[in-house]
Amino acid sequence: MSGAPAARLPREARDELLGRVRAIVRERLVPLEPEFLNRPFREARAALDAVRAEVKAAGLWAPYVPRAHGGLGLALADYAHVSAELGWTPAAPYAFNCQAPDVGNLELLLAHGSEEQRARWLAPLLRGDVRSCFAMTEPGNAGANPVLLDARARLEGDSWVLDAHKWFTTAADGSAFAIVMAVTDPEAASPYQRASMLLVPMDAPGVTLVRNIRIMGDPGEDWASHAELRFDGVRVPAASLVGPRGAGFALAQERLGPGRIHHCMRWIGTAERALDLMCRRAAGRELGGGARLGDQQAVQHWIAESRAELDACRLLVEDTAERMDREGQKAVKERISLIKFHVAGMLQRVLDRAVQVHGALGLTHDTPLAFWYAHERGARIYDGPDEVHKSVVARDILKRYRA
Amino acid sequence: MSGAPAARLPREARDELLGRVRAIVRERLVPLEPEFLNRPFREARAALDAVRAEVKAAGLWAPYVPRAHGGLGLALADYAHVSAELGWTPAAPYAFNCQAPDVGNLELLLAHGSEEQRARWLAPLLRGDVRSCFAMTEPGNAGANPVLLDARARLEGDSWVLDAHKWFTTAADGSAFAIVMAVTDPEAASPYQRASMLLVPMDAPGVTLVRNIRIMGDPGEDWASHAELRFDGVRVPAASLVGPRGAGFALAQERLGPGRIHHCMRWIGTAERALDLMCRRAAGRELGGGARLGDQQAVQHWIAESRAELDACRLLVEDTAERMDREGQKAVKERISLIKFHVAGMLQRVLDRAVQVHGALGLTHDTPLAFWYAHERGARIYDGPDEVHKSVVARDILKRYRA
Amino acid sequence: MSGAPAARLPREARDELLGRVRAIVRERLVPLEPEFLNRPFREARAALDAVRAEVKAAGLWAPYVPRAHGGLGLALADYAHVSAELGWTPAAPYAFNCQAPDVGNLELLLAHGSEEQRARWLAPLLRGDVRSCFAMTEPGNAGANPVLLDARARLEGDSWVLDAHKWFTTAADGSAFAIVMAVTDPEAASPYQRASMLLVPMDAPGVTLVRNIRIMGDPGEDWASHAELRFDGVRVPAASLVGPRGAGFALAQERLGPGRIHHCMRWIGTAERALDLMCRRAAGRELGGGARLGDQQAVQHWIAESRAELDACRLLVEDTAERMDREGQKAVKERISLIKFHVAGMLQRVLDRAVQVHGALGLTHDTPLAFWYAHERGARIYDGPDEVHKSVVARDILKRYRA
Amino acid sequence: MSGAPAARLPREARDELLGRVRAIVRERLVPLEPEFLNRPFREARAALDAVRAEVKAAGLWAPYVPRAHGGLGLALADYAHVSAELGWTPAAPYAFNCQAPDVGNLELLLAHGSEEQRARWLAPLLRGDVRSCFAMTEPGNAGANPVLLDARARLEGDSWVLDAHKWFTTAADGSAFAIVMAVTDPEAASPYQRASMLLVPMDAPGVTLVRNIRIMGDPGEDWASHAELRFDGVRVPAASLVGPRGAGFALAQERLGPGRIHHCMRWIGTAERALDLMCRRAAGRELGGGARLGDQQAVQHWIAESRAELDACRLLVEDTAERMDREGQKAVKERISLIKFHVAGMLQRVLDRAVQVHGALGLTHDTPLAFWYAHERGARIYDGPDEVHKSVVARDILKRYRA
Repeated sequence: MSGAPAARLPREARDELLGRVRAIVRERLVPLEPEFLNRPFREARAALDAVRAEVKAAGLWAPYVPRAHGGLGLALADYAHVSAELGWTPAAPYAFNCQAPDVGNLELLLAHGSEEQRARWLAPLLRGDVRSCFAMTEPGNAGANPVLLDARARLEGDSWVLDAHKWFTTAADGSAFAIVMAVTDPEAASPYQRASMLLVPMDAPGVTLVRNIRIMGDPGEDWASHAELRFDGVRVPAASLVGPRGAGFALAQERLGPGRIHHCMRWIGTAERALDLMCRRAAGRELGGGARLGDQQAVQHWIAESRAELDACRLLVEDTAERMDREGQKAVKERISLIKFHVAGMLQRVLDRAVQVHGALGLTHDTPLAFWYAHERGARIYDGPDEVHKSVVARDILKRYRA
Repeated sequence: MSGAPAARLPREARDELLGRVRAIVRERLVPLEPEFLNRPFREARAALDAVRAEVKAAGLWAPYVPRAHGGLGLALADYAHVSAELGWTPAAPYAFNCQAPDVGNLELLLAHGSEEQRARWLAPLLRGDVRSCFAMTEPGNAGANPVLLDARARLEGDSWVLDAHKWFTTAADGSAFAIVMAVTDPEAASPYQRASMLLVPMDAPGVTLVRNIRIMGDPGEDWASHAELRFDGVRVPAASLVGPRGAGFALAQERLGPGRIHHCMRWIGTAERALDLMCRRAAGRELGGGARLGDQQAVQHWIAESRAELDACRLLVEDTAERMDREGQKAVKERISLIKFHVAGMLQRVLDRAVQVHGALGLTHDTPLAFWYAHERGARIYDGPDEVHKSVVARDILKRYRA
Repeated sequence: MSGAPAARLPREARDELLGRVRAIVRERLVPLEPEFLNRPFREARAALDAVRAEVKAAGLWAPYVPRAHGGLGLALADYAHVSAELGWTPAAPYAFNCQAPDVGNLELLLAHGSEEQRARWLAPLLRGDVRSCFAMTEPGNAGANPVLLDARARLEGDSWVLDAHKWFTTAADGSAFAIVMAVTDPEAASPYQRASMLLVPMDAPGVTLVRNIRIMGDPGEDWASHAELRFDGVRVPAASLVGPRGAGFALAQERLGPGRIHHCMRWIGTAERALDLMCRRAAGRELGGGARLGDQQAVQHWIAESRAELDACRLLVEDTAERMDREGQKAVKERISLIKFHVAGMLQRVLDRAVQVHGALGLTHDTPLAFWYAHERGARIYDGPDEVHKSVVARDILKRYRA
Repeated sequence: MSGAPAARLPREARDELLGRVRAIVRERLVPLEPEFLNRPFREARAALDAVRAEVKAAGLWAPYVPRAHGGLGLALADYAHVSAELGWTPAAPYAFNCQAPDVGNLELLLAHGSEEQRARWLAPLLRGDVRSCFAMTEPGNAGANPVLLDARARLEGDSWVLDAHKWFTTAADGSAFAIVMAVTDPEAASPYQRASMLLVPMDAPGVTLVRNIRIMGDPGEDWASHAELRFDGVRVPAASLVGPRGAGFALAQERLGPGRIHHCMRWIGTAERALDLMCRRAAGRELGGGARLGDQQAVQHWIAESRAELDACRLLVEDTAERMDREGQKAVKERISLIKFHVAGMLQRVLDRAVQVHGALGLTHDTPLAFWYAHERGARIYDGPDEVHKSVVARDILKRYRA
């Protein structure tokens, strides 16, 4: 993230830490699920903020942030385990200040923010006093192709003037600022050096939250939302660049690497919960005649297949995180694409089985399964659709055969 | 439905009829999708009711209802084609008064309702002046096993007194009456002869709509809802039985046969729409460099596989409807179970591919794909989960090998 | 095939015919399976030839051949049903003179053969006195791409001189003649008009059967084989062209259309047999404690899924055959590609399940399952791999969206 | 295997060892594939025995055998890596004296053989002078259920008299002895204590090799075979028991644990080879117009998915081997069932894709793909079918939910 990679915790220390995280997740946050799943986010926020205070008091706040900045300074391979714990219930990342997209923005500003950006924007973000968003995807353009970005920022005097139309900007509703990808250098030779990142206060004139986008029936709001945004002639100071001019794509890539590992480990925690719910239902649901749902061979096979896929995915992501700590992000680029699609596919299959085992109940918000089934359908799309990642991996592999 | 089976239309007459249905569906109802998909149902209802008036004026109202009762009197095999047209957009069944669960209740009352029930309840239902619901599923019991029904009705004087806890009662919100499955004869020798159907006005004292159940984030309301209901000591006249006492399961089975064919053909229409959207997106979306999404082999393969599965499923359901017209419901019992799971599986795969082709857009309510992806996940669960239908089919087949 | 399309049989006549075919297949040919599956083909041939005589005596010989040429003159849609019966056991096509590749060659020579070719080569083929092969695929070139054909024939005086290296030439071992695809006009403007078909006696000087290619362990011989062939400077008379010069690809396409329907219906018969074996095993195999294999839910689900896929595929192929009879081959080109991959996929899944239900027995040649599992793996490859057919279908569909 | 668990090698030592194994596998054994795949085993054996001598000379013989007995004494977790190397080509296990079923018999005799058994039978087995087999599966009984064993041995004087009908006895053809599972104590209270293991010389009177069973067309012989055997009144000395009387099932279970890890790692090596062949083909095969097979998105996706599944499976098996070394076989019982079905499924998918990428070539014995496709279809059946292992895993998991 910044400076030397963090050292791994000794195993006992890590397990002790995970135990404390787990206790808060399961004893404090799982009981809040009925409210989180059935009420608008703003109504659930007070209760979640109370847990945030407990998390801080317990010294578990922002575990991936360096100690110097108030976090636990965990190595990625240790944080991955925390992330899996946080996947257990939908609001846990928020409660530990580990929620997307703030994590990614924190990392960006820690590594590339100016003194002033750190003081004014990073500090309250680290404290959890504000939230932020990251505006990259555009409605008219395939997300995966950088050449197709329409957002434009031009330097006028000592201001950037930004025109952009973005969507799927997660958590924009209620954010203090956005980091916006826009083309600043349309004539740059390489299409990969045309865009920059701009830090834009959300209350700047010209910023409009067009709507929170309804995702599979969920209107969404506040942190739990994805917005369509317009930036019409928005003026920000020249010093609003995050990182160097033209470095937008390079930084976006840098931002995505650890982010994908966070996602993957969170999905693993979510799949663990789905499997746990599946097993509870299978063990408890009576079918008449003394039989239980778990006596059905189809249900048994779903449980066994889910256990196998989950164990295999977990080891794969842990191995990737360890290698990234050891060898750096570039060395595991292909592996990160690989886990992105592989774990997302596993998650969808496990959720689908868990829903089916729950029958009609699985469609309701009486468990978090339906929430995940609907919202994590995006896992195969966001941060690059499966199809792109698979081709990236294959082309890398095939290069070695053509040499 | 009642009396002799309806005669098939000549092919030209059928195609002419389908063309008129299709015109209303695509020209009048598709434009209402943004409102239907993004606003509470009650806000969209006025526009839909205007289309209902047009449907009546065009002589297309309630096509499966015998001519003597104001419908078109279509044979099942002809109605199946209409049903496929109605699957094209989510509100079409409502606009043609073909919506579940009213269709099933209409069929029940036409075949088994008393004179009084027909006059008081069936007539306004046929006109579309009221809606109704069917309360069978219970939260504590596996839907597929009749022995596990907890609802009880006992005869006190000339009243039935009903105690029941039901859920997933589709469209209960705003319904004029419910048909409720309850055990009336707990001591009957056969567990299949213990329950009866009771017609219960929704405004009877003791009827409580506990909640509309949130389905994958969609709160639901009015017709577009699934309710949890309580019936606490609800009294209705002795004459409220629909059909004979103890015949509840027999009638429920009778109700489900054509209902499953309606569902299956509606799903086929929905899958056709999903494939159409997929193709539009593939043909139109540019990827840069002159390439389009539809040039990608993965997308091509999804289109071809969807076309193949759809054509095969359509022929299978049509064949089943024709055989049911010709040979009766009993003769095609195994086939109806078979199409139930087979078509539901096809629908889910096609919707999943269509979502993926749309990327982030596929998760929004800017197309109906996300609505269906979330709501039709239930297709593999309601009216009997896949697993039950598969075992039913296999056991029937294996019986022939043990003879 | 030639002249006006054949008329459909009345249903009763068709069913009577199918019953007689079925009787020979099940009573005479199934008992020969142990020998066919475990001994070299030449050792089984005498018994098969005895059945051939019975087939002729019963008036069932070569049912797709016009009556004027000694067959039954069936319409494609009727022959499709016969083909399904013949799929029941591996040697049935041979016994009815319906075996690939002779069927395709017969159709070619009936439609395009010269008087002399018909007298000398077609007549004994029709009688079953000789066999033939069709040499198109080349080891160095992707089968699906006509531009990549290396075989060359040049006219020298009144002879063609042929140089070619072919493989996967089915049944070349023991054939009297081959029809060989070779480039005769390398300079033709369209790459689709460069090749012609040549009739080459297998005993011509320069023809070498390099080897019968071992397919998944089966060495293969005689009709039940696939050969690698070399044609080194083979000279045949100028009149050896089948059809016009440069028409090779057009005729190959013409040949493939009905051939794919034959294949698909044969696969359906094979899948029916696999399902039948699966059910027999499930119904008969005891697991101890009074339970049978068919009581296992996994086995039940495989049976039900296989039944559903089979019924759907059968209707799809029948519908295609009827449309081809009615509207001609060109009108159903897309549909033929579609059934090719869809039915091949179904066959592989059903065979895989049937093998699994049989356990170790499923791997042996004590049933025909292993033979089909190994040999019909090619169904997804020969006559165009799945991937090519899927893209063909999708591109045809997408064209309609770009208009 | 016997005594204290072996210590792990330092990483460098292990990698050096693996490098030497790999060199022999790829440089000496891969070139023998054409002969191994296309000729009867006995014709290939001389060349393989020459490699055996080199393996011995290189000090790589029987790596899993304790140093005291002439092996390398590898820990299971180290041997697992060797096993993956040996999966690269079909004859490699034979060349390193690591072939099933001899490995399992070696382990049995090392742990439970009498002094005499070790001297007479184990010693030549360790040297590779003889081969052996393990006769458990019976044609009439479901392999997975011990209660259904028909083989009987009764003590007459100081001899056991054995009557048994076995099949799928791998490598019986040419074996010096068999270890036979038979019921010796039919009245034992527990059905799990009724059977014993008997060491039976294959040349004992009454032992008949009925046939080598044809597996998907491959007749099989010598080591590369699976036999049907009869034991009719075969007399062996009372001292022929391997391990205690009644301990047959306990020992069979003990034998299977490490055996399944060996299998799984061998399959991983085989899948690696299949993926390597897939990539070579994709990178090298031209499609015309400058395009290569590997430019096709479908092929890219197969490569990426195979890489992902392979990496995940490899880590899962390595993790299991390490835990077994550390915690013992009992602690990983559930995990061993889990990897058995999970890795077998991965292998089949990767082989299927590799065959498809090779087109017709993939069906031939010009690569080892077809051999594996046919022979490793058994991977989902032998040592317990997938369905049994999945239910075992699920029931173990569900137990924890019922406590």
